[in-house]
Amino acid sequence: MNAVAETPDQHLRARARRVIPGGMYGHMRSEGLPASYPQFFERGEGCYLWDVNGRRYIDFMCSWGPVIVGHRHPEVTEAVQRQMLLGDCLNGPSPRMVELAERLVDLIPHADWAMFSKNGTDATTTCITLARAATGRRKILIARGAYHGAIPWCTPNTLGVTAEDRAHLLYFGFNDIESLEIAAEQAGDDLAGIMVSAFRHDYGLDQHLPTPAFAKRLRELCDATGAALILDDVRAGFRMNLRGSWDSLGVQPDLSAWSKAIANGYALAAVTGNDRFRDAAARIFVTGSFWCSAVSMAAALATLDVLVRENGPDRMHATGMRLRDGIAAQAQAAGIGVRQSGPPQMPTLLFDDDADFAKGESFCAEALKRGVYLHPRHNMFLSTAHTEADIDAALSATRDAFAALAAG
Amino acid sequence: MNAVAETPDQHLRARARRVIPGGMYGHMRSEGLPASYPQFFERGEGCYLWDVNGRRYIDFMCSWGPVIVGHRHPEVTEAVQRQMLLGDCLNGPSPRMVELAERLVDLIPHADWAMFSKNGTDATTTCITLARAATGRRKILIARGAYHGAIPWCTPNTLGVTAEDRAHLLYFGFNDIESLEIAAEQAGDDLAGIMVSAFRHDYGLDQHLPTPAFAKRLRELCDATGAALILDDVRAGFRMNLRGSWDSLGVQPDLSAWSKAIANGYALAAVTGNDRFRDAAARIFVTGSFWCSAVSMAAALATLDVLVRENGPDRMHATGMRLRDGIAAQAQAAGIGVRQSGPPQMPTLLFDDDADFAKGESFCAEALKRGVYLHPRHNMFLSTAHTEADIDAALSATRDAFAALAAG
Repeated sequence: MNAVAETPDQHLRARARRVIPGGMYGHMRSEGLPASYPQFFERGEGCYLWDVNGRRYIDFMCSWGPVIVGHRHPEVTEAVQRQMLLGDCLNGPSPRMVELAERLVDLIPHADWAMFSKNGTDATTTCITLARAATGRRKILIARGAYHGAIPWCTPNTLGVTAEDRAHLLYFGFNDIESLEIAAEQAGDDLAGIMVSAFRHDYGLDQHLPTPAFAKRLRELCDATGAALILDDVRAGFRMNLRGSWDSLGVQPDLSAWSKAIANGYALAAVTGNDRFRDAAARIFVTGSFWCSAVSMAAALATLDVLVRENGPDRMHATGMRLRDGIAAQAQAAGIGVRQSGPPQMPTLLFDDDADFAKGESFCAEALKRGVYLHPRHNMFLSTAHTEADIDAALSATRDAFAALAAG
Repeated sequence: MNAVAETPDQHLRARARRVIPGGMYGHMRSEGLPASYPQFFERGEGCYLWDVNGRRYIDFMCSWGPVIVGHRHPEVTEAVQRQMLLGDCLNGPSPRMVELAERLVDLIPHADWAMFSKNGTDATTTCITLARAATGRRKILIARGAYHGAIPWCTPNTLGVTAEDRAHLLYFGFNDIESLEIAAEQAGDDLAGIMVSAFRHDYGLDQHLPTPAFAKRLRELCDATGAALILDDVRAGFRMNLRGSWDSLGVQPDLSAWSKAIANGYALAAVTGNDRFRDAAARIFVTGSFWCSAVSMAAALATLDVLVRENGPDRMHATGMRLRDGIAAQAQAAGIGVRQSGPPQMPTLLFDDDADFAKGESFCAEALKRGVYLHPRHNMFLSTAHTEADIDAALSATRDAFAALAAG
């Protein structure tokens, strides 16, 4: 092959530039990644991913979260195939919707009911609509810099957004109780709800778990004012705790937004809520053409079966810790300062003295070369398909990546 | 069986009331339909649909639009199965995204590029964001009463919506040029875009195709002001004209929103646009966890293949006319005044002197009893799976339904 021959990925990128704005859009645009990262992917199997150039990777992005029991998990595929023999998008829901709602209500302590949609943004938007509908108030508090979706009220890029789209948002700092109290004070008797991510997983920053005092104060403020405590569990949901990411903190939200991992990559989102919000949930009008589709719900039921049976969060915690400990030891041995943050199931790896992410990108590019797909800025994701052997194989690649980085 | 035994549908409704607000939500809630209509469905095949009670219907809702070549079309299923062997939701798009964008750009005259999402609402919302981003202006004109989605800026039920969510919307009457000009005048130099449905398909009303003068004036106004002409083809797309619903009018939009029928029921939406909006489309941030998923795109490619090869719109026009002509003759013979409106591919059937829809509901309930699923208020949908024999079978049921109605 000629050294300058175009790779399949390069060829697809050139075709994409003609017919897709910027060649790609949104969070899956590869622009923010080292140049050697592929844009287009061919297939996935378990914790492995193949790009269109035929290269295989041990995957630590899991499709940016959705894949939680591994690509093409046989049990999920079987449930999907069974439902496909019946039908997917019908004139109304199938029994799968009731079964899944019952399943979530059984599993999640705060949940008295569930509703389904297609995007995480659908779920977060339904939550704020619900908070306003139930309380008759308007103000929503969110953490500064938190990602809650990508429509005008929440997208991180305000191009095309008007000031009015965010007229009733007030901001606080994650884990900053004083700023939370000030924002609640500003909202006064117009406080409809407080939305908070399961943990602080802002792009390019060290991740922070919520302090117990912060979570407790959120609950108190909502109890005192009648506002809705809304947990945005879209990104973290089902990885930290199957009962909701704050269950172990002893703090239950009024409403939770779920998506990503709920159906192992099939398009589904959910809102769960308690009885205080049931009536408002029955009265608002939210819908979508595919919100009742049965296949994604069959996939969710199978995914939850696997996660419960295999104790998914604990398993991902263990493999995530193995990865974290291994990387920490390698970094120390190489004399390179790194910071690992977030829950081990959703690791973030950042380098010291690396404001422009140049070190992180070099490291990730070296790992990629060796068949390990990491992200230099965003939190990553484990799945239950990652075995100890996969982690060890990945650590063998990261060891070499550290060595390459140390060698300059 | 005991006469009062609970049916499977009743049993599921009772279970649903415990764990789903109101027992169901959104447009698929059966509350607005006669009591005999089922809420839950078991399966679909071609133009047939089975409810959970085991009753089969000739289906004229087509899942409220998405199913356009028939449930479980073998060619679509085969494309889906082939893609499922590879993967669906990966760390980025698969080649299917480029292929589908190329396909849409080839097919749709105004389209220089395409972007994909999951809900019709995603597509309409992206269009208004794009119009604002490209023009640096804020005002969007929409037709009074038109449905463009179900998030706060557009949902028909304003519970949970704030005034600011709609601060920059101005309203005109569909096909009412004078009101359109007044609204454009009000927007002045802040006019970002005008969004209009392919035809007036408002709930519970006679449907109206756009007049050529109205469509032409919309184009002129946008050309004169630099605003985006946005065609909401979510509901009508691919049924009236594969090149876009206004192609036969000789009016091309700047941006079009698509969803529903694009992938025969698989969750997919798209925005197509011309080069004037390409740069803004590359710069706004819109995304979703499942927006790059390959299976729905493989389904769309196969669906478009079938529609092009079989000349889907003409075929649905012919079967739709057969249904319309048959119903008109039956109504006349029964001495019952009905109004049939909208394109024949998307028929609406309303009864004279029927402000409370009581006649329409009785008629539809009688048809349902005889195995034909119609809607008494909403526009209906044909698919290419409806054969002349299916239409004739449906007409045999509607003849009896008219007779029952005439008998009081």
